[in-house]
Amino acid sequence: MIPGVRVGHCTVSRDPDVRTGVTVIVPSRLPLHAGFRVLNGNGEMTGLLWVRESGLLTTPIALTNTFSVGVVRDAVVAAVDPELWALPVVAETYDGFLNDIAGMHVTREHLFAALEDAREGEVAQGCVGGGTGMICHGFKGGIGIASRPAGEFVVGVLVQANHGRRPRLTIDGVPVGRELGPDVVPLPGVPEGAGSIIVVVATDAPLLPHQCDRLAQRAVLGIGRTGGAGEDSSGDIVFCFSTAEPSGAHRANKELDDLFYATIEATEAAILNALLHATTTSGRDGRVVHALPHDRFEEVMRRYGRAV
Amino acid sequence: MIPGVRVGHCTVSRDPDVRTGVTVIVPSRLPLHAGFRVLNGNGEMTGLLWVRESGLLTTPIALTNTFSVGVVRDAVVAAVDPELWALPVVAETYDGFLNDIAGMHVTREHLFAALEDAREGEVAQGCVGGGTGMICHGFKGGIGIASRPAGEFVVGVLVQANHGRRPRLTIDGVPVGRELGPDVVPLPGVPEGAGSIIVVVATDAPLLPHQCDRLAQRAVLGIGRTGGAGEDSSGDIVFCFSTAEPSGAHRANKELDDLFYATIEATEAAILNALLHATTTSGRDGRVVHALPHDRFEEVMRRYGRAV
Amino acid sequence: MIPGVRVGHCTVSRDPDVRTGVTVIVPSRLPLHAGFRVLNGNGEMTGLLWVRESGLLTTPIALTNTFSVGVVRDAVVAAVDPELWALPVVAETYDGFLNDIAGMHVTREHLFAALEDAREGEVAQGCVGGGTGMICHGFKGGIGIASRPAGEFVVGVLVQANHGRRPRLTIDGVPVGRELGPDVVPLPGVPEGAGSIIVVVATDAPLLPHQCDRLAQRAVLGIGRTGGAGEDSSGDIVFCFSTAEPSGAHRANKELDDLFYATIEATEAAILNALLHATTTSGRDGRVVHALPHDRFEEVMRRYGRAV
Amino acid sequence: MIPGVRVGHCTVSRDPDVRTGVTVIVPSRLPLHAGFRVLNGNGEMTGLLWVRESGLLTTPIALTNTFSVGVVRDAVVAAVDPELWALPVVAETYDGFLNDIAGMHVTREHLFAALEDAREGEVAQGCVGGGTGMICHGFKGGIGIASRPAGEFVVGVLVQANHGRRPRLTIDGVPVGRELGPDVVPLPGVPEGAGSIIVVVATDAPLLPHQCDRLAQRAVLGIGRTGGAGEDSSGDIVFCFSTAEPSGAHRANKELDDLFYATIEATEAAILNALLHATTTSGRDGRVVHALPHDRFEEVMRRYGRAV
Repeated sequence: MIPGVRVGHCTVSRDPDVRTGVTVIVPSRLPLHAGFRVLNGNGEMTGLLWVRESGLLTTPIALTNTFSVGVVRDAVVAAVDPELWALPVVAETYDGFLNDIAGMHVTREHLFAALEDAREGEVAQGCVGGGTGMICHGFKGGIGIASRPAGEFVVGVLVQANHGRRPRLTIDGVPVGRELGPDVVPLPGVPEGAGSIIVVVATDAPLLPHQCDRLAQRAVLGIGRTGGAGEDSSGDIVFCFSTAEPSGAHRANKELDDLFYATIEATEAAILNALLHATTTSGRDGRVVHALPHDRFEEVMRRYGRAV
Repeated sequence: MIPGVRVGHCTVSRDPDVRTGVTVIVPSRLPLHAGFRVLNGNGEMTGLLWVRESGLLTTPIALTNTFSVGVVRDAVVAAVDPELWALPVVAETYDGFLNDIAGMHVTREHLFAALEDAREGEVAQGCVGGGTGMICHGFKGGIGIASRPAGEFVVGVLVQANHGRRPRLTIDGVPVGRELGPDVVPLPGVPEGAGSIIVVVATDAPLLPHQCDRLAQRAVLGIGRTGGAGEDSSGDIVFCFSTAEPSGAHRANKELDDLFYATIEATEAAILNALLHATTTSGRDGRVVHALPHDRFEEVMRRYGRAV
Repeated sequence: MIPGVRVGHCTVSRDPDVRTGVTVIVPSRLPLHAGFRVLNGNGEMTGLLWVRESGLLTTPIALTNTFSVGVVRDAVVAAVDPELWALPVVAETYDGFLNDIAGMHVTREHLFAALEDAREGEVAQGCVGGGTGMICHGFKGGIGIASRPAGEFVVGVLVQANHGRRPRLTIDGVPVGRELGPDVVPLPGVPEGAGSIIVVVATDAPLLPHQCDRLAQRAVLGIGRTGGAGEDSSGDIVFCFSTAEPSGAHRANKELDDLFYATIEATEAAILNALLHATTTSGRDGRVVHALPHDRFEEVMRRYGRAV
Repeated sequence: MIPGVRVGHCTVSRDPDVRTGVTVIVPSRLPLHAGFRVLNGNGEMTGLLWVRESGLLTTPIALTNTFSVGVVRDAVVAAVDPELWALPVVAETYDGFLNDIAGMHVTREHLFAALEDAREGEVAQGCVGGGTGMICHGFKGGIGIASRPAGEFVVGVLVQANHGRRPRLTIDGVPVGRELGPDVVPLPGVPEGAGSIIVVVATDAPLLPHQCDRLAQRAVLGIGRTGGAGEDSSGDIVFCFSTAEPSGAHRANKELDDLFYATIEATEAAILNALLHATTTSGRDGRVVHALPHDRFEEVMRRYGRAV
């Protein structure tokens, strides 16, 4: 994601109908200045009252399915320090189309395994961890990661992308979703726009808490630029933290524009990465969700004059 | 609490060191218009993003200890409907002074039992359910309930009171906490001001969601009038819902003042009830937290000219 | 804008250097349910505390330049009812590049004139009223209006567009701003990204106040989709109201998606209309801001495969 | 107020019916970290969008009457720097019972005069500046100032107190308002609870913007403890800023409790000072508002066991 931030997955996948997991984002030190913004709040992200009050992220972040927020949340409490209290940041998107979500197959050990797996640098994307059962704009979704430079700093974005309707998908202004309709890539029974997207923004730029909110708001724009609309049934929630020492000097507000642009672009790129790394997946009740076909995608982009 | 709202407890108490439980507030129908306000956010109340976005309470509310928010939250999901998704409202206060909180003794069955126990009318207060291990202004705390009329309507308040420092406790303007200092009622090792208070306000007045926020804000005033200050380590969170049919007519804003006054008073009364119903409790590591002694309390009130 | 909402302008333009004015939005009855959302708050919109508290718009809305918010605000107070108090909603964007803004040439009479001018149906767009001195994505900006159907309802959007950098301007996914760079349409000295955009969303869909907030958030997405990023120096503020009787039945949350889509699209269209209706304007110190040339614009759109 | 913060008044009082003015709070340098919180939003405080977005106070603060917010706001813009744009923080309470408010007797020169008058240390309280025509808990109100130490720091509070109903007034827990009812101190026709209170909190403790919000929230508790309820018709708004260098080290959240307590107490004391410094005032249409009689007040306090 960015230096100093580890990402780990525990994929929980068992035939025929378990398609879920846990993904964690683990800063190398805590607490850190943090903030958030909501596009549409039909979702859960625990711990936000304390983030808003304190301006601080005090635990690793975990992403999982809607029914497993609790078990993962308590597992983070246990993992942090059983003698202290913690108010973990745990978020979810719904994977019940492909996954037997009511079976509650995620356990606290899965959270521990994801923490164990956490590493810096290249990590798996697509159908892994919390992204295992995701659906994004009618294609197979999942975890996507991207980063963009912003002057001397970098902005990294991780998404668990489970949102959006097919016809609204737009990549770099190209109406990919309209071009690749159900006649080209089937979506039998796939619930469109019923999902959610969790976005985690990390930057090494030294930000105050309210400036983290401001970056989070730009990730909202990135969701919108790729076709997300925050449908009523969607939980589109952005969390942002700065890896810089909280007590150090911070950026003046007027120096933030490059970080804003980088956040917008990294969010767009992370959503695309989730789509491009995901693979066609079958699950519960024999349902199938198709991946965005790379060749078709590239053909469309070229047709609209974009280099691929 | 008020007609149409059931309250249930499951007390989880085993010698020597388990002093915890679950309390639920169950409206007779859902969804209902709802809102909330935070005095100090060092606590957890799940489900608030969806409450804010939708203006609706869509599940029963549950209160438990800090380490058990997750298990209780997932249990509510399971209890509501395993085929639908739910974003339950579950809140916590910390009972680790009297309770082996790290032992995570609350299970999903305890949530089910509390739902089973839910009833209208008179219910137990003090050291029951989520209030079992609470400490309030240096005395034994717990669950307190009170209601006040407001014109043709009623406002009911339930608190899980675990907050406040001893010297700040004020009842009806009388400095009870200063009068009943550690020399009168010992507080050996009791962590003052390290707790939290969860307040749930229910009314049959037909309110819109933003008007529920407004009532919640008045419960914040009630906390303040009894000596709460929202200390940094405290999670002082107020939830409010209206039991009226959401699509029906609602109150004009200018008709709310009586509801505001009733909310302030009911909150003050509920905090006092938590103190008066609680009993001296021993727990983890032989620690003891003393109840507010009724005779001493009445003596102080009389001394300051208040009828008791 | 939409039936039941009048729009009026008073353009204050005198050579050589006065290029400003007032635009008003006047619902046919008040109060109405209302809400708002902020992309970037480097701007002023008065009256929002009461809108948030009451959920109501209680006055006409006025848009003017940054230095004249006060005089216009007091004029609305006087216009409403000198014996009652009012908390008007008055917003601003900065026109000091083309206009002698420090001369404070807007008077209360200009507000009265704009109210007098208010009418339903077709009204002037571009360099009129509060839009007289605006700059949008490095082209001449101003007032733009558009509406979109959403099932049985309609969403209307009025913008005072003064925001954005040239290279970021995107219309229907086409990078118009990059294609029409300074070599094609000069921008000598024009401050890019230093402006703001005020968006007023009106709908006849019966919405509750928090649902007005939700529509406002979708207008934020519309700003983002045309290239706005909420630069630090920009005041990007969206106000939304419903013309339906506040005490009547309202829409269920799950019925809002079509309104969301319509709001995004109408916002994009209103921004484009502001650009297309504006005309090349000279002002203070002989400065010139060029309009978006229609022929060049259409040529670019066609080149990217869009029908015009 | 506190060292480094100047306060100035311009009282605009002319018989028979002009009873208004302007009060300013002028930090010795700007920008400063700032935040705010609202108890009830039936009032105006301009500039808050930029305070929230930037975390900064960038102008002097001015308080005046409801109809004069605009003229004072534009005057601050002019006073700051006519070549730059400013988003001033200007707030109001309603003085139309004693003052010919619709006559709009405040001019920009009055704002300039208040700035000219600004000084550190002792300044006038009661019926001065913006407080000239105020009514507080049915007694004559106005400007009140108080400060409290908090460890090595100090918290200063200035109120323009125009809020509250007589029977709810409570000083140090003593029901002063009930004891001094209309039979003791008449309130012929005085509109109770129809007013507002503006609170400005200043501290030399080095706070981040979100920590300024937290202090503002404690001033809300101070309003509540003296009997304020944030009635629907009241605009009860708290602004808070830190005079410390924004880029310097700041306080850890856990070090804030003493500042919280000091803010609550200083707010209570400032409200009492507004009452004690105000003098019986006649105005518009021969109306009279009586001051809180010092001898009666002291008698009541002594009767309830408080030293005076």
